[in-house]
Amino acid sequence: MKFRRSERIIDMTHYLLEHPHQLVSLTVFAERFGSAKSSISEDLAIIKETFEKRGIGTLQTVPGAAGGVKFYARVDKESAKAFISELCRQIENPGRLLPGGYLYIMDLLGNPATMNKIGKLLASAYADKKIDAVMTVAAKGIPIAHAIAAHLNVPVVVVRRDSKVTEGPTVSINYVSGSTKRIQAMVLSKRSLKEGSKVLLVDDFMKGGGTINGMISLLSEFNASVAGIAVLVEAAYPDCLIDDYISLVKLQDVNEKNAAITVVEGNYFTKNIEFLEGTSE
Amino acid sequence: MKFRRSERIIDMTHYLLEHPHQLVSLTVFAERFGSAKSSISEDLAIIKETFEKRGIGTLQTVPGAAGGVKFYARVDKESAKAFISELCRQIENPGRLLPGGYLYIMDLLGNPATMNKIGKLLASAYADKKIDAVMTVAAKGIPIAHAIAAHLNVPVVVVRRDSKVTEGPTVSINYVSGSTKRIQAMVLSKRSLKEGSKVLLVDDFMKGGGTINGMISLLSEFNASVAGIAVLVEAAYPDCLIDDYISLVKLQDVNEKNAAITVVEGNYFTKNIEFLEGTSE
Repeated sequence: MKFRRSERIIDMTHYLLEHPHQLVSLTVFAERFGSAKSSISEDLAIIKETFEKRGIGTLQTVPGAAGGVKFYARVDKESAKAFISELCRQIENPGRLLPGGYLYIMDLLGNPATMNKIGKLLASAYADKKIDAVMTVAAKGIPIAHAIAAHLNVPVVVVRRDSKVTEGPTVSINYVSGSTKRIQAMVLSKRSLKEGSKVLLVDDFMKGGGTINGMISLLSEFNASVAGIAVLVEAAYPDCLIDDYISLVKLQDVNEKNAAITVVEGNYFTKNIEFLEGTSE
Repeated sequence: MKFRRSERIIDMTHYLLEHPHQLVSLTVFAERFGSAKSSISEDLAIIKETFEKRGIGTLQTVPGAAGGVKFYARVDKESAKAFISELCRQIENPGRLLPGGYLYIMDLLGNPATMNKIGKLLASAYADKKIDAVMTVAAKGIPIAHAIAAHLNVPVVVVRRDSKVTEGPTVSINYVSGSTKRIQAMVLSKRSLKEGSKVLLVDDFMKGGGTINGMISLLSEFNASVAGIAVLVEAAYPDCLIDDYISLVKLQDVNEKNAAITVVEGNYFTKNIEFLEGTSE
């Protein structure tokens, strides 16, 4: 069966979007469509150009017999700026204020389109890093971890507060919460993380940095190392235990009395992230 | 700026895949590309044909001034069969056996590509239903719930075993576990679900049906109703409290002594799901 160019590029677009960070041999596409590799190369050039122009991502071509093409999600700076400022605006809604100065953000964490965009932004910041897994703490970090991992095409590893019978043998550590200074426990299933893994740590919220620090302690029990730290919201806190991280938004101030929340851009744009030039939606 | 057809269909393919179950006016695309609506209609016809042929999904065209096009994820039966039988084979691995006859499946739940396929299969079973939200219980159900919700473009609502300070006021119920007959509690944040919502209940594993039954009790506290019940794995159990559900795989037998796990296809293919005709990857 022969395929027209338009059919090929629709199918290849879908295929590449579903297989990010994965080297796809040109032979795979050539056989898929019964086309010459030269036609496939032309198709890929059009896809690459459009992906970059429209803020979708980029294609990297690896030459040679073992070569092929790899799709990476990337964003253009303008869309990223617009999305983050919209996030700030949403989080500043005083209706989110809970007793104790906590913020309700379950609606954002439960919105798949928002999570997809957050995942794309954070994944594109680590596109060039070697990452074997994304780790988070149950339950609020899970949607963000999955959103990032989907774009990086790596597994998600979930740390819990207590061990479950469905997780098998676990490794447990104690850590000190960064802001409340209380001792807490964290467990990870032994079979969920390979020795020596390079791990991207992810959480929805970071204040004192205790939870992230706990995950770092767990990593050392698995002889694994930190490949990066990404959080959705960081709260202004003078003695945060963690220095090197990426945040999308920063909670500057919560004034319970006046029901006022001040949220600003996180440190995302200070991190030398490679952006696309294109203008997109 | 004018766009070539190939650029338009790449961008539209991406846009539609990212906005499932959402009516997109042809004007949106016409303005996006500075093209005539007639050209956009032709592009969409090519995309629809290719999506159906390649097992990606379908486009529904809504005529009239308020009309447009809607993308639905759908699968072809052959790929669905192949995927489910591969899932069965993976779950049958005796290495998954844990003390008490439990199975370790965190690796599957942590694999974004697997979750995406599971989400697509389950979402396409409910593509024609009116669904306002997907509900699950933390933590293991979260990746599946998000994977389904991403394809249906609806929010995810997460039930917990205990209330958290970051969730605000909660509604709590007690329920009886279907298989162990123990009384357990479940809580849901009051602001996480709108009154009157039609909810798809999702879990990774169902045996006695107690957890699903607990979620049904919670729904009634929100004057919400069940739009469907979907589980990844159902375990053979004579007195399951739940009758009307869709499962991808069925755990027929676990023999701890011989370390043998028997897994068969769930009831997915008995549910009159509309499949695509196409042959895909």
